[in-house]
Amino acid sequence: MSACEPLRIGVSGLGRGFMLLLPTLAAHPGIHLVAAADPRAEARARFEADFGGTGYDDFEALCRNPKVEAVYIASPHGLHREQVECAARHGKHVLVEKPMALSLADCQAMIEAMEAAGCWLLVGHSHSFDTPYLRTAAMIRSGEYGRVRMIHALNYTDFLYRPRRTEELDTTRGGGVVYSQAAHQVDIVRLLGGGEVTRVVAQTGQWDPQRPTEGAYSALLTFANGCFATLTYSGYAHFDTDEFNGWSGELGQQRSPAEYGKARATLQSIGSSEEEARLKNRRAYGSGLGLADTSLAGIGHNHFGLVLASCDAADLRPGPTGIDVYGHTEHRLVPLAQPDIPRREVLDEWIAAVRDNVAPIHSGAWGLATMEVCFALLESARTGQVVDLHYQCPVRPEGA
Amino acid sequence: MSACEPLRIGVSGLGRGFMLLLPTLAAHPGIHLVAAADPRAEARARFEADFGGTGYDDFEALCRNPKVEAVYIASPHGLHREQVECAARHGKHVLVEKPMALSLADCQAMIEAMEAAGCWLLVGHSHSFDTPYLRTAAMIRSGEYGRVRMIHALNYTDFLYRPRRTEELDTTRGGGVVYSQAAHQVDIVRLLGGGEVTRVVAQTGQWDPQRPTEGAYSALLTFANGCFATLTYSGYAHFDTDEFNGWSGELGQQRSPAEYGKARATLQSIGSSEEEARLKNRRAYGSGLGLADTSLAGIGHNHFGLVLASCDAADLRPGPTGIDVYGHTEHRLVPLAQPDIPRREVLDEWIAAVRDNVAPIHSGAWGLATMEVCFALLESARTGQVVDLHYQCPVRPEGA
Ligand SMILES: NC(=O)c1ccc[n+]([C@@H]2O[C@H](COP(=O)([O-])OP(=O)(O)OC[C@H]3O[C@@H](n4cnc5c(N)ncnc54)[C@H](O)[C@@H]3O)[C@@H](O)[C@H]2O)c1
Ligand SMILES: NC(=O)c1ccc[n+]([C@@H]2O[C@H](COP(=O)([O-])OP(=O)(O)OC[C@H]3O[C@@H](n4cnc5c(N)ncnc54)[C@H](O)[C@@H]3O)[C@@H](O)[C@H]2O)c1
Repeated sequence: MSACEPLRIGVSGLGRGFMLLLPTLAAHPGIHLVAAADPRAEARARFEADFGGTGYDDFEALCRNPKVEAVYIASPHGLHREQVECAARHGKHVLVEKPMALSLADCQAMIEAMEAAGCWLLVGHSHSFDTPYLRTAAMIRSGEYGRVRMIHALNYTDFLYRPRRTEELDTTRGGGVVYSQAAHQVDIVRLLGGGEVTRVVAQTGQWDPQRPTEGAYSALLTFANGCFATLTYSGYAHFDTDEFNGWSGELGQQRSPAEYGKARATLQSIGSSEEEARLKNRRAYGSGLGLADTSLAGIGHNHFGLVLASCDAADLRPGPTGIDVYGHTEHRLVPLAQPDIPRREVLDEWIAAVRDNVAPIHSGAWGLATMEVCFALLESARTGQVVDLHYQCPVRPEGA
Repeated sequence: MSACEPLRIGVSGLGRGFMLLLPTLAAHPGIHLVAAADPRAEARARFEADFGGTGYDDFEALCRNPKVEAVYIASPHGLHREQVECAARHGKHVLVEKPMALSLADCQAMIEAMEAAGCWLLVGHSHSFDTPYLRTAAMIRSGEYGRVRMIHALNYTDFLYRPRRTEELDTTRGGGVVYSQAAHQVDIVRLLGGGEVTRVVAQTGQWDPQRPTEGAYSALLTFANGCFATLTYSGYAHFDTDEFNGWSGELGQQRSPAEYGKARATLQSIGSSEEEARLKNRRAYGSGLGLADTSLAGIGHNHFGLVLASCDAADLRPGPTGIDVYGHTEHRLVPLAQPDIPRREVLDEWIAAVRDNVAPIHSGAWGLATMEVCFALLESARTGQVVDLHYQCPVRPEGA
């Protein structure tokens, strides 16, 4: 198989996660979409129309398709483990969406299954794939700024008021901002801090009885290298940290402050959780929306709120247009070129692993370590205690 | 004594702290400066020239002056306890600078001495006196926005690189950002969170061997009412949070981003700690500088970095021009009029206590509770443990 040949991918779950990566998947020359599995017939039909591939109502059937080399698992979290194990049985490489799974045991089983199959397992997209963070991590590792000492990550969004499936509002089934959003924020902070968190202490907030899951958290993390980090998140749709990023949104889109309160207002207009699920579905792939409704035009680098990494010689502040370097004597911006294909980083890392055997940063072990922090965050909020960690791993050594 | 008669004040310590409050003291119609104590003869001479009062080289001699009704103690922290006890013996009301003292025992002794004397004890100026925070606290207490749930406070400054006395760089003598800056930040967060912190967990950073004291910290606080808060501070002169406040500085002055790196550059140009102390002295009252060199013109409301208080119905963001209210349906600014006399709040609270028996928010018990949090912050950073608190007090009940 030539290194230039596109990776032949099967997708599991044609929902919101897929929609976000869809224009990137379609634009990336190293990717060829050949199959998709989803119980929704309209989504499968849309996929076949958009890509000419094969739609399956059963994931295992997709895995039996010999054309599929690798699967992108973007089904609900609760299915991640069984689908990864299934893909492993059929010898497929896997990119599984964050959060990796709902327990450490599930994460471990996924890693073992993929190792036994001799296939690559990556966890993503997460925002730690965003070029601003990858570049900042490389700047830190270069040693030019001394050691990384303190990291501060802040994100205020409307997460909790976007249309949701009922399980997305139920923590026991992986709902709430710790599973869905700390998975991003922790991944970024681990990337910048070197990867190995030793201790977590945290508080979580569940303040809206109508949305009875974590909508906010604050956590203090300590790293093996002495670095420490605070992470704060609110999904309660009030203040929005995009204000600190020139109103460039999480997905690289230009936002308008004039749309203040939109998520809550939309939700207010509907009555039941069934109606809410329908609203979510109306925005789903196949239900009216397809490839033609997506676009990468005007999309900049993705980001995840405010991030500040304090090193001995500078504070580094990754943002959508570049990395602000606040040094001893000057403040300058290390500019980032506009992305040619936004969000391609996750696919590049996947292709490099499968085609060129480049060990990914976002391996199964990495994803498990991020989930260990998330689980510890929930546990610490419950018990009030500091939680010690045991399954952390460093950022992939340079050149590994 | 009529309520309109100005408070006759003696000052202890004509240093940097005094300089900051000097134009306010001079402008406030309720204040009359009648005496000052400082070992520096040139400062005493300047005081007598500026105000026509009496200068003393000995604090107790100042306390014996019957004209002095109340003393403002702005001497180095290590002297606060003995000077408060001395003032109590002479029946003077006291405003003592933050940090109140260097141990809980010292704080307790100060409170007991003042109670025994039947005099008012206030701790300040601290930035929790700033109108943006007082107003935000009142908005929270009004109940209009539901309960306060989460507070986030962030401040990045050049604190560690301003000219310092040697003890200001020695934690055991009250040096570093926990004593000098957490005393502000904790005071603000306690004011907004209701006052009663139950638990503290924190990390501190000492990263510059040339300035061997805490230059940074992150802390997670839990309140009795369930609210939690993260506080992060860096004094390492890189990123500056004034960027988030329209370049209005901590002291209400308009700042210029073009002056980036000034503190470090100035320090770089001098060789020894003696030279540094001399540099600090050159900027001190009496050594060239006097009342005529100060001005309140163009001074806006003071602030202490970024503060976000998340309530059920809105995030409140106090800033120098007003309080941003990010509600369910709209974002609006509750504007604050420019202050007539900047930083007058602390004097107003003092005068109200002494003249009208209005119990101050910033009482001795309040100041002790803030210091308990600061001590716990240092302890938690040392031990890695969560520290439980025992001496907290609520914000003064409305109308107390
Ligand atoms: N990285 C990101 O930025 C990002 C963004 C959104 C979602 N996600 C992740 O993607 C995953 C899916 O979330 P979502 O928001 O797209 O949910 P969604 O409800 O929008 O979509 C889920 C899709 O999976 C389909 N599905 C259900 N059962 C299936 C099965 N057995 N096999 C295959 N497909 C099945 C559903 O029909 C639906 O189309 C989650 O793990 C989520 O965390 C990641
Ligand atoms: N609220 C604020 O914003 C703020 C700002 C700066 C300082 N402060 C506080 O003010 C206090 C003094 O700090 P500073 O920065 O002004 O220090 P400084 O060194 O600038 O000034 C201290 C002054 O006290 C004098 N002094 C020394 N011994 C004395 C004694 N026995 N009696 C009277 N005066 C004596 C010194 O000569 C000097 O003039 C500290 O507690 C500090 O935390 C508060």
